Amino acid sequence: MADAIEKVSIIVSKGSLEGVYPALIMANGARMEGIEADLFFTFFGMDGIIKKRMNNLKVATVGNPGMHMPTVIGALPGMSAFATKMMSKKMDELDIPPVGEFIEMIHDAGGELYACKASVDMFGLTMEDFCPQVEDIISVGQFYERSVNAKIIFT
Amino acid sequence: MADAIEKVSIIVSKGSLEGVYPALIMANGARMEGIEADLFFTFFGMDGIIKKRMNNLKVATVGNPGMHMPTVIGALPGMSAFATKMMSKKMDELDIPPVGEFIEMIHDAGGELYACKASVDMFGLTMEDFCPQVEDIISVGQFYERSVNAKIIFT
Amino acid sequence: MADAIEKVSIIVSKGSLEGVYPALIMANGARMEGIEADLFFTFFGMDGIIKKRMNNLKVATVGNPGMHMPTVIGALPGMSAFATKMMSKKMDELDIPPVGEFIEMIHDAGGELYACKASVDMFGLTMEDFCPQVEDIISVGQFYERSVNAKIIFT
Repeated sequence: MADAIEKVSIIVSKGSLEGVYPALIMANGARMEGIEADLFFTFFGMDGIIKKRMNNLKVATVGNPGMHMPTVIGALPGMSAFATKMMSKKMDELDIPPVGEFIEMIHDAGGELYACKASVDMFGLTMEDFCPQVEDIISVGQFYERSVNAKIIFT
Repeated sequence: MADAIEKVSIIVSKGSLEGVYPALIMANGARMEGIEADLFFTFFGMDGIIKKRMNNLKVATVGNPGMHMPTVIGALPGMSAFATKMMSKKMDELDIPPVGEFIEMIHDAGGELYACKASVDMFGLTMEDFCPQVEDIISVGQFYERSVNAKIIFT
Repeated sequence: MADAIEKVSIIVSKGSLEGVYPALIMANGARMEGIEADLFFTFFGMDGIIKKRMNNLKVATVGNPGMHMPTVIGALPGMSAFATKMMSKKMDELDIPPVGEFIEMIHDAGGELYACKASVDMFGLTMEDFCPQVEDIISVGQFYERSVNAKIIFT
């Protein structure tokens, strides 16, 4: 029986604002408890570390009944931007920083960020595309090696 | 080597019917095997415990190619309600109860329900908004403390 | 302290191409490292093992801000087919096989595939509907039994 979690290995696979934030909140919460935290960005989740995109993530207003918005309205141009602005404002009030700053904060607190090699190849990216907090581009095998004593959380 | 899972800590992050049900089915399945089960509701997943919403969750008919429905049709007013009715009917035939009853059943079997503090603050909610089976509003740190000997399952 | 992961139990719950592939890539990566790998298909994720559907999975072009496509465009007939063709082409260039072949490969490498009993009942399916690599239809309880010494990854 362990008496504390040693590490969390959080996989970020979605590129929407409500896809990336839970992962960052869980990584940050882990560091605040002295738990090691790795963030592994894959597929569309890589938007969270791509310099040109990370501060422009949007809330999905369609395909998400949780938004309580009819699809015909959610699909109107501007609705996603509107919902995104509302959520960003709310996050700001709660002192939850924008994605870029949040990642800096987690990194400064000792969290480590990695990009998934298969996804990097698929989208034709390089380390140049990522924010400076990204440690390395690693394979699934390397991810597993880093996660031996971790709880794996796929978000 | 353990010879049985001791506990599962299931995070519910999506508010659609097909987002909430797998979490409830896994929590219920755990209790039936004598495995401890925590459910931790966060972001749009909180709809599963909000009294006014928990029995009106909808199936996402757009953004889900698994529905095998062209987006232009899935987006028509009423389509999500229709798919929801179909799925609810099917669940009923299989003796899978509606969300509210299902939560009662899991709670009566010893499963514990928690709401995520960051999400509660973001959406401006209180314990009054939740069904009576919700034990408490807890932080990510407290979630990790409760999950030391658990498999964490993020749904 | 373990010095390697013994097993991964990967749950596939989404039926989109970008929902199924990460699960297959993680299962395949596990087998390449000598890690045992179970794939457990549930809800819409079962499309990944249904013979008539597994090679026709589509990318979700709406409800996914990561696509960087306005919803009104993503919803046009043909856009999902177009995005799917682009992703399939890219995967092919990277030697990532189509779903059917990929599953064969993982199975030949020792990965085991299971369908979720509750979902099979809900959608009225039988073993006849599945590709021959599917070992069995099992309950959530049996899934937990198979996952005692595994990292559970819900995708």
